[in-house]
Amino acid sequence: MDATAHLPPARDKLLFTPGPLTTSAAAKQAMLHDAGSWHFEFNAKVKWIRERLLQIAGLSRETGHEAILLQGSGTFGVEAVFATCIPPRGKVAVLANGAYGERMLAMLQKARIEHTPLRTAEDTPVDPKALERALGHDSAISHVAVVHCETTTGILNPIAEVGAVVRGHGRTYIVDAMSSFGAIPIDIGGCGIDYLVSSANKCIEGVPGFSFVLCRREALLACEGFARSLSLDLLGQLQGFDKNGQFRFTPPTHALLAFEQALHEFDAEGGVPARAARYRRNHEILVTGMRRLGFRPFLDPATQSYIITSFHFPKDPRFSFDQFYRRLSDKGFIIYPGKISQMDLFRIASIGRLFEADMRALLAAIEQTIAELEIRMEPA
Amino acid sequence: MDATAHLPPARDKLLFTPGPLTTSAAAKQAMLHDAGSWHFEFNAKVKWIRERLLQIAGLSRETGHEAILLQGSGTFGVEAVFATCIPPRGKVAVLANGAYGERMLAMLQKARIEHTPLRTAEDTPVDPKALERALGHDSAISHVAVVHCETTTGILNPIAEVGAVVRGHGRTYIVDAMSSFGAIPIDIGGCGIDYLVSSANKCIEGVPGFSFVLCRREALLACEGFARSLSLDLLGQLQGFDKNGQFRFTPPTHALLAFEQALHEFDAEGGVPARAARYRRNHEILVTGMRRLGFRPFLDPATQSYIITSFHFPKDPRFSFDQFYRRLSDKGFIIYPGKISQMDLFRIASIGRLFEADMRALLAAIEQTIAELEIRMEPA
Repeated sequence: MDATAHLPPARDKLLFTPGPLTTSAAAKQAMLHDAGSWHFEFNAKVKWIRERLLQIAGLSRETGHEAILLQGSGTFGVEAVFATCIPPRGKVAVLANGAYGERMLAMLQKARIEHTPLRTAEDTPVDPKALERALGHDSAISHVAVVHCETTTGILNPIAEVGAVVRGHGRTYIVDAMSSFGAIPIDIGGCGIDYLVSSANKCIEGVPGFSFVLCRREALLACEGFARSLSLDLLGQLQGFDKNGQFRFTPPTHALLAFEQALHEFDAEGGVPARAARYRRNHEILVTGMRRLGFRPFLDPATQSYIITSFHFPKDPRFSFDQFYRRLSDKGFIIYPGKISQMDLFRIASIGRLFEADMRALLAAIEQTIAELEIRMEPA
Repeated sequence: MDATAHLPPARDKLLFTPGPLTTSAAAKQAMLHDAGSWHFEFNAKVKWIRERLLQIAGLSRETGHEAILLQGSGTFGVEAVFATCIPPRGKVAVLANGAYGERMLAMLQKARIEHTPLRTAEDTPVDPKALERALGHDSAISHVAVVHCETTTGILNPIAEVGAVVRGHGRTYIVDAMSSFGAIPIDIGGCGIDYLVSSANKCIEGVPGFSFVLCRREALLACEGFARSLSLDLLGQLQGFDKNGQFRFTPPTHALLAFEQALHEFDAEGGVPARAARYRRNHEILVTGMRRLGFRPFLDPATQSYIITSFHFPKDPRFSFDQFYRRLSDKGFIIYPGKISQMDLFRIASIGRLFEADMRALLAAIEQTIAELEIRMEPA
């Protein structure tokens, strides 16, 4: 045993995970304050955050859009859109190729909302043509939902092409942009997106505690009376902000203070293009380095996002993910398990407050771990 | 104008609010770390928090109980109990004497769950005799729900007497103990409580981000198939913890780290009795001091909790709550507005990391503010 194992390290382990992720010290330090959720100083911050989120998307209240913050994780935000915006006889087509698409279907089932899955394999982008056929056949489908970047594998779905089909049929379009918003440019108007959902602890690099929905104000106002839940009532939440600038129910005040700081740092870095460039560089270093070590990415590079990457387990039967994970953890690096059932994969994210040097340090730790465990890597 | 107005103060304003509230520096400092929500070190903390919450209530997994943590505010926790545990033909009687009882009714309405209100005036405890009559007449009522400490006014409801009636009729009993758990002793078994809901940012003195539900495991397992929501599915949440010790969806990791520290400090202070004593003392100092200044509490002392206290506005027409509030804020003290519509009240909470000296400092600031505003106070 290592006699130094009890000594706490100087620094936190780095998270190569898709959120919660590693955030800046300043974002966390912003949480060293208790704010009153009724207090005008706090509510001015909430107002600013809502405006900034719209600006990142190239929108504003003047273009008729709203950013609505909701307590809970990103899943709560997606479910809130369904719980609020689907009329009693509405039906949702869900384009699914991973766990987050399947999660949408599970939400709709629990809420007793009619739905139809349009599945593709987990290594295959969702299919706009299949949607075209479904919308042509089934006039009951009122809404279409899709995940932009499926964190299950890291695959990127063609939200513009899907949006063109949705718009062509005059349906409503819901996009889960959880792990892409802020780091992958999204033309909300051009894609015809009616509701876009993301979360504090993704590419804006805040801490977890709330999600947010960007939408057209008029579209949401037309959903009066549909809500199936009080807590998840997105229109109620908007009306609360309209009334007095406050959350209807206690907000995660500290997470909001961290997010304010994270937004300042997002701007200072250079907004979406700069963040996209940093994450893309992180991803490229990762994939190049992993290939060199003999690891094989799961996805075709043409469909692979620069957000998170899935790798096959090495073929050597001595490889145990648990051992591999723990030894990397001991070295200060937290990676992520796989999420699909048919295949043995693990995942490494490129997002959060991570730089080129961090990716290289991770690669060195992986190389060392493979040597320690005497894993035989096949040539790439 | 004060030429020093731009200088940031050395310390945060103190929150005399019912949550978010003022927390310890160490609880906030615990948030200076990013934790992986899949990571075993983090999940060991979650397990410990769940066990400690049961212990505070005198329960454990061995007594067949579970503590289930849920993302979002306390309202999300209350709604999760309804969304998960009421069978399709269930009906809930809600004993209501304030905004939080009314909020329960609003939740039930949104979720299309049958319900019946049993209201008393906001200055009057809920009425176990009215419940006795209702349960005698209406066999459809399957569940009874009540708020323990109605933060709307600060009134304390007789949860033991209500529980005896519920148990006598063999119905299920749901108690919102949001602002009482941890500071007012609650005999969950003795009161016959099936589901008790509270929140991180109340008397345990954590930061906002999640709620928790204490319940009998078997009772919750019997609710399989009832859930109307995925995010608010309490049974699904329990099954997630059972499966791998994890939250099903991204937890507010930083809020959980703060809560772990808050629980250590709760123990160090001496648990429920010590916290009760401190808050009671805070409340007594407050009420004595406010009466001396000429303020009149809204409630009869016999029904008043030591959690939060409502005061009538002074009769002097020169009194403006907004002015009063802002001047106290300028002095570093955040109080709380009233929440009932029929009467002009404001509220001051006694909970959070507040001590006798803080209550006296607030009283001095109030006295000074009244003098500044030349408010004429009538003799008490």
